[in-house]
Amino acid sequence: MGTKDYEEMEFAKLDISREERTGFPEVVFCQGKPDEYLVEIYNKLYERDGRVFGTRATKEQFTIMKKHIPQVEYNDISRIMKIMPEKPDFDKDNYIVVCTGGTADIPVAEEAAETAEYFGTRVERIYDVGVSGIHRILSKEEILRGANCLVAVAGMEGALASVVGGLVANPVIAVPTSVGYGASFGGMSALLTMINSCANGISVVNIDNGYGAGYMATQIDRLARKK
Amino acid sequence: MGTKDYEEMEFAKLDISREERTGFPEVVFCQGKPDEYLVEIYNKLYERDGRVFGTRATKEQFTIMKKHIPQVEYNDISRIMKIMPEKPDFDKDNYIVVCTGGTADIPVAEEAAETAEYFGTRVERIYDVGVSGIHRILSKEEILRGANCLVAVAGMEGALASVVGGLVANPVIAVPTSVGYGASFGGMSALLTMINSCANGISVVNIDNGYGAGYMATQIDRLARKK
Amino acid sequence: MGTKDYEEMEFAKLDISREERTGFPEVVFCQGKPDEYLVEIYNKLYERDGRVFGTRATKEQFTIMKKHIPQVEYNDISRIMKIMPEKPDFDKDNYIVVCTGGTADIPVAEEAAETAEYFGTRVERIYDVGVSGIHRILSKEEILRGANCLVAVAGMEGALASVVGGLVANPVIAVPTSVGYGASFGGMSALLTMINSCANGISVVNIDNGYGAGYMATQIDRLARKK
Amino acid sequence: MGTKDYEEMEFAKLDISREERTGFPEVVFCQGKPDEYLVEIYNKLYERDGRVFGTRATKEQFTIMKKHIPQVEYNDISRIMKIMPEKPDFDKDNYIVVCTGGTADIPVAEEAAETAEYFGTRVERIYDVGVSGIHRILSKEEILRGANCLVAVAGMEGALASVVGGLVANPVIAVPTSVGYGASFGGMSALLTMINSCANGISVVNIDNGYGAGYMATQIDRLARKK
Amino acid sequence: MGTKDYEEMEFAKLDISREERTGFPEVVFCQGKPDEYLVEIYNKLYERDGRVFGTRATKEQFTIMKKHIPQVEYNDISRIMKIMPEKPDFDKDNYIVVCTGGTADIPVAEEAAETAEYFGTRVERIYDVGVSGIHRILSKEEILRGANCLVAVAGMEGALASVVGGLVANPVIAVPTSVGYGASFGGMSALLTMINSCANGISVVNIDNGYGAGYMATQIDRLARKK
Amino acid sequence: MGTKDYEEMEFAKLDISREERTGFPEVVFCQGKPDEYLVEIYNKLYERDGRVFGTRATKEQFTIMKKHIPQVEYNDISRIMKIMPEKPDFDKDNYIVVCTGGTADIPVAEEAAETAEYFGTRVERIYDVGVSGIHRILSKEEILRGANCLVAVAGMEGALASVVGGLVANPVIAVPTSVGYGASFGGMSALLTMINSCANGISVVNIDNGYGAGYMATQIDRLARKK
Amino acid sequence: MGTKDYEEMEFAKLDISREERTGFPEVVFCQGKPDEYLVEIYNKLYERDGRVFGTRATKEQFTIMKKHIPQVEYNDISRIMKIMPEKPDFDKDNYIVVCTGGTADIPVAEEAAETAEYFGTRVERIYDVGVSGIHRILSKEEILRGANCLVAVAGMEGALASVVGGLVANPVIAVPTSVGYGASFGGMSALLTMINSCANGISVVNIDNGYGAGYMATQIDRLARKK
Amino acid sequence: MGTKDYEEMEFAKLDISREERTGFPEVVFCQGKPDEYLVEIYNKLYERDGRVFGTRATKEQFTIMKKHIPQVEYNDISRIMKIMPEKPDFDKDNYIVVCTGGTADIPVAEEAAETAEYFGTRVERIYDVGVSGIHRILSKEEILRGANCLVAVAGMEGALASVVGGLVANPVIAVPTSVGYGASFGGMSALLTMINSCANGISVVNIDNGYGAGYMATQIDRLARKK
Repeated sequence: MGTKDYEEMEFAKLDISREERTGFPEVVFCQGKPDEYLVEIYNKLYERDGRVFGTRATKEQFTIMKKHIPQVEYNDISRIMKIMPEKPDFDKDNYIVVCTGGTADIPVAEEAAETAEYFGTRVERIYDVGVSGIHRILSKEEILRGANCLVAVAGMEGALASVVGGLVANPVIAVPTSVGYGASFGGMSALLTMINSCANGISVVNIDNGYGAGYMATQIDRLARKK
Repeated sequence: MGTKDYEEMEFAKLDISREERTGFPEVVFCQGKPDEYLVEIYNKLYERDGRVFGTRATKEQFTIMKKHIPQVEYNDISRIMKIMPEKPDFDKDNYIVVCTGGTADIPVAEEAAETAEYFGTRVERIYDVGVSGIHRILSKEEILRGANCLVAVAGMEGALASVVGGLVANPVIAVPTSVGYGASFGGMSALLTMINSCANGISVVNIDNGYGAGYMATQIDRLARKK
Repeated sequence: MGTKDYEEMEFAKLDISREERTGFPEVVFCQGKPDEYLVEIYNKLYERDGRVFGTRATKEQFTIMKKHIPQVEYNDISRIMKIMPEKPDFDKDNYIVVCTGGTADIPVAEEAAETAEYFGTRVERIYDVGVSGIHRILSKEEILRGANCLVAVAGMEGALASVVGGLVANPVIAVPTSVGYGASFGGMSALLTMINSCANGISVVNIDNGYGAGYMATQIDRLARKK
Repeated sequence: MGTKDYEEMEFAKLDISREERTGFPEVVFCQGKPDEYLVEIYNKLYERDGRVFGTRATKEQFTIMKKHIPQVEYNDISRIMKIMPEKPDFDKDNYIVVCTGGTADIPVAEEAAETAEYFGTRVERIYDVGVSGIHRILSKEEILRGANCLVAVAGMEGALASVVGGLVANPVIAVPTSVGYGASFGGMSALLTMINSCANGISVVNIDNGYGAGYMATQIDRLARKK
Repeated sequence: MGTKDYEEMEFAKLDISREERTGFPEVVFCQGKPDEYLVEIYNKLYERDGRVFGTRATKEQFTIMKKHIPQVEYNDISRIMKIMPEKPDFDKDNYIVVCTGGTADIPVAEEAAETAEYFGTRVERIYDVGVSGIHRILSKEEILRGANCLVAVAGMEGALASVVGGLVANPVIAVPTSVGYGASFGGMSALLTMINSCANGISVVNIDNGYGAGYMATQIDRLARKK
Repeated sequence: MGTKDYEEMEFAKLDISREERTGFPEVVFCQGKPDEYLVEIYNKLYERDGRVFGTRATKEQFTIMKKHIPQVEYNDISRIMKIMPEKPDFDKDNYIVVCTGGTADIPVAEEAAETAEYFGTRVERIYDVGVSGIHRILSKEEILRGANCLVAVAGMEGALASVVGGLVANPVIAVPTSVGYGASFGGMSALLTMINSCANGISVVNIDNGYGAGYMATQIDRLARKK
Repeated sequence: MGTKDYEEMEFAKLDISREERTGFPEVVFCQGKPDEYLVEIYNKLYERDGRVFGTRATKEQFTIMKKHIPQVEYNDISRIMKIMPEKPDFDKDNYIVVCTGGTADIPVAEEAAETAEYFGTRVERIYDVGVSGIHRILSKEEILRGANCLVAVAGMEGALASVVGGLVANPVIAVPTSVGYGASFGGMSALLTMINSCANGISVVNIDNGYGAGYMATQIDRLARKK
Repeated sequence: MGTKDYEEMEFAKLDISREERTGFPEVVFCQGKPDEYLVEIYNKLYERDGRVFGTRATKEQFTIMKKHIPQVEYNDISRIMKIMPEKPDFDKDNYIVVCTGGTADIPVAEEAAETAEYFGTRVERIYDVGVSGIHRILSKEEILRGANCLVAVAGMEGALASVVGGLVANPVIAVPTSVGYGASFGGMSALLTMINSCANGISVVNIDNGYGAGYMATQIDRLARKK
């Protein structure tokens, strides 16, 4: 590792050795970034790499960005704002699954799914299969068992990850969501459920962290794809 | 309600209008009671009612009690210490289910089951059917659906109650247990899971409170039996 | 249980075996649902069943829905939005009680009461009978004791459930509410009070979960009604 | 206030202006004090004042102390270790009440009651009158209403203070106890109940702090007695 | 106690035996009450008693009330909305102190002070005397020591109550406030500080509960005034 | 999935379809299991599979087991009790890394490492490389970057996972440990650190859950090995 | 210490012995102060000292202040509102470092840096050097090691302080920030990380308390400068 | 920084560049270390440096160590186990203060004081000066104001740090202790008090972390001593 593998900006240090070190391009966490910083970062990355991918963007940020970079696209479910000229060419034999307990978990699931797709991973979506109607997830057993990695997204009591973990041989990444009310404590209840899961092969990322799950699922899928 | 329906003891006020008011005889919570008090209470109740039922008793308490009341029995799984000369005559057409996520939850489940049986309720036990091997609980669907009330006992992530709740028409009483380690916080994780359940018809009692669940399940079963 | 008893929508899996499985029609949790989804779901259910019942609806959602389904009704205390062409024919001999500690708990109590009524249960309402003026609840002892199930709704210190539980023979479902300030932690204080109740026959649902309490109270009332 | 109104010991600074400042003699918190320190402090205070009062003492500490000061007395319920040659001469017209929810709260209640008595206050004890059998506390209404101050001691859900507060005109000091299990969190549940009480005229001391309640009740009783 | 000492309204049960039982007239907690209810309650109480006192009122509530009852007054620091035709005639020899740690705690302190004054208690205010400039509170020692009761209002680390408690002979009621940021957790930090105080004669009310402190301080002051 | 793929024991339901379903043999969680149950389970598994692997065993459990199955081995650092007649034949080209922040984290790390080895995974151990002496972990960069998966075990502030995550391309499984004191809350502090990590490619298992990390690391390593 | 070293205002007690006692002029915490109070305080301090420094000011407060004191300046990153006619003359041989984990932590860092500069301390800023790209902070090792004190500002997992602490000989003041989401709990996660740091020479201030860190860093720098 | 400045042991990596990097020799955290490891580490450090300093040692560890290294000394208040052939030669003009709220805080204070002395810092001890008898700490104002740094050690409500902070110009390091009961939560209450202190110039270390405070106080004292 060299001693200065980054580029100094006034308000940031761009980690230019990152893709070489990790195999993943830089991703922008848009939430809370001042508009002028965000535009400057998108411009710099677009210039250098020809593509940009940002999470947690607001509609307002998109409106401003579009004036500067007309090619930018925005998905208001996943809140992802990206410039992605070429669609990835997905591997036919490998895929991951992203599944949710309910309809309200879909935004987090889409953040995970789009992230994985941006990094080149094929994704199968299975939504609204929470444990209170267990026949729904069981009817998808085959597709679950074929995935290299499974991302289980759920709020409220978050039991989905345990059930999925008991059905498959490959790793499950559990994403607690802030969906719920009362004693769900903004997702802490689901996080604790998932951390205490009695099933094997489950690990957990932060509440609503679809991006983190999509990233790690890609790492795992890539290991399976490498031959 | 009369103004003084209890009997003064030095250290307690025996609630003698209780059985009339609620249909349930008094039950002794043995934990932490000084030996001399406990013996005196058992003696008084045995004299009056011909039977006594106590929860959370220790082996030491049993050894002492046996010297005073030789008929007393003790179960070291459920920690119930009772004098119960006649077995109840259970109703053939009605029963409740007590089920557990794992083997370690059995002591709490047995507290629930023995409590219900003491109050005259027939109990079907289904143990070690946690959600990480979902086929186990599914194979019992018929017996689950026939019960007037279901007591779901689970520690760790406590997801059992949600799955059971999704399979049946009758009420589920969820009992979180202190089984677990790390972020299970002595059962708080399971309690939160159950309180946040996305399934309908689930309510929750305190951590390890098998007695409370057995009591309420009996209340419900009695309503179904009344004709 | 068949392997695919649900209907695929783009954003949800309608659980069509649910009424058969549980005896209860589907209920819509309106909170946070995008308008177009909500309208589509109400339309689909209305077509199929001739009635729809939704909880946690906002006035805005009602205004939009009314344009699509003019028969829809809205109650801005309980926040229930429903289409219910025929009034249920209540049983004369059976009822449940819904009671509250204070006036501010009434919205949650009404959610419980209307839910139970939608499912065919007769409800007696006893509001503003909190424990700091104990004579108010005591004056209602007879009506309390006649109910098959009692729903006790209270915020702040939530002691109502314990007092009610000590007066009656039938089960009490305790609903903590988020009414309070300071160390009430959005209802967590009331939830803990209720979970730790020293009275028998009490179980607890999530904070502000009037729907869940009305549902379970109906399950219990139905068992009593079955002959 | 002088600049040095205390006496230096190697391990402590005896606050010798305390009785003058507050009207209360020094009290020893025995818990965790090394034996040699404790004996030295008791000796010093006994010499100076002719009496000593200590809380949270263990039987072991008493055994050691007795060897040095044979007049010392110990109560193994309240865990108070004292030398008190003359009994106080209580006022006939004034008293406080100390009441408990259950039998298990008596040790904390006795710490409060003995503390108040040591400071010269007459105490009426009303034990085991928890809210799950509400007729018990109601039968004592007259004696409750005659007290200058009421100390309400309760664990588990701690609802006693609210009920007492609604019955009387004078202040109630609520003492949460660590009695309970599961989600009682060592008394935190009772503390939250009491802090959130909807009744007026209630304030709260630390969990199991019988001493603090007895002290403050005496302050209030003294104000009533002063003429 | 009679069995029905209250008046039924549609949305409340007015506790009409309350003043007789406790010596205090009813007070209205305005927060969250619908406008029509609030107006009706003020009208009813004004008619009956010729005065009304309400806490936690908003400016909007005041504007509406003024249209119905032009005599109503509003203080936008304490948020108290009252009709109080005659000023109380304060006792010359008795008073309580209300003191605060900082300027930001004044609204809560004023709620306490105005409440006590409404109930007839003379109040001395000592504001902005927090412990980080200890000479400020020490310069007021004489006035502190003359009070029958002291209300210590503080947010952030809430240490004021301990210092005051160490200086006086009479009881201190500690009011934690939600003033602070970061790890102050909306006042929980101050509440814990006060509950754990090493000084004697301190008890605690809920966060921001100025009303409760003013009420209890009056109870104590009345005991001292009674001759 | 068949409807009854398990074997009924009196106290457990052995999940016999598990290895087929997941590719992993059953593992025994010894903690808290009664001696007679544990011996019976080891006997049954040894008979069927010729090997057994159990975690969280105590020395006492080992002493008893040795009398029944003399081949059993015990490691008092990792607390693993196993019968494993043949050593696995590790893949030369693939391995995982298990690293720790400090010496005190080694027991949890060894649970992870031995679990992975039991399942056939080659493990490189890098211990005592916490972030307060950052040069230690940096000197191991090459070996870190060659691993298919990295298990980062740390207590106290748990920052190791973030640093490791920033250095490598493959997934990191973070294991918080209960090592620490004061505000480490039995590992909760480390868990929160890891869940909030700003590095990518990190997911978290329960406090002290070395087994879970070793299991998932094996799942990932197997995907990389499959060709 | 004199007995009355402060100046009474209606709503505050200005601590006029403060600069003499501590060597630091008074600083205004603007947040939540009513506009008229704030203007009066700025006027009073400006008159007396010729300069004023306030933290946590809003743009609205600045707009109002500018009308009264046109010289006032505002920085909308650090939210500091000040009147500072002369720039301090910094010491060439002494400085402190303020560093951040990410870009989003800069506002808190600037509050620290500007505070220190106001008090006469030279500051080196090193921003966006979080541990997930460890080479960035390592490239600054020399400048870090030359500082008399280091302020490490970080949210999310807050690991920066531990890494910095391991690299330098002088004290590190850790400032957790509320930057993050999900289980970061408004900065509590970062606070716990920093409090539990395994590195030596680290102490912690409140979440987002840049002012407190800048103050203490100046105290330390002054000790080093004194000769 | 070189790439491998440590010495590999089987169970640890001795950080041999540490003294050069930070100016402080290595210190051993004895708690939980297996006996053979501890003896080996003491031997290794004694050989190399001629002195060793360890914290949190038990009497049992001392007994074993004495057999191997007879010169070792143990203090059973501070629990420090050290070999220290020459007493440090303290600077006459510079010192730090270590003060405590109560007697029970002395063990933590002694850990701080002995640590600082081991590193060459002169320490003034001021014990048992808690805020409930404020005249005690005020009588020490002169000695407090002369210190380069002050370590304030307190449990329960932990208000000592704020009072000290308001009296002096130099930095205060606050050490919360686990002294207390009930809602003190093992020191968390004191930690929150100190973190939220309204006084300036205060920062906080972990609960009971006397070592950390003594270390940082030495860093500060050294800066003041350097000329």
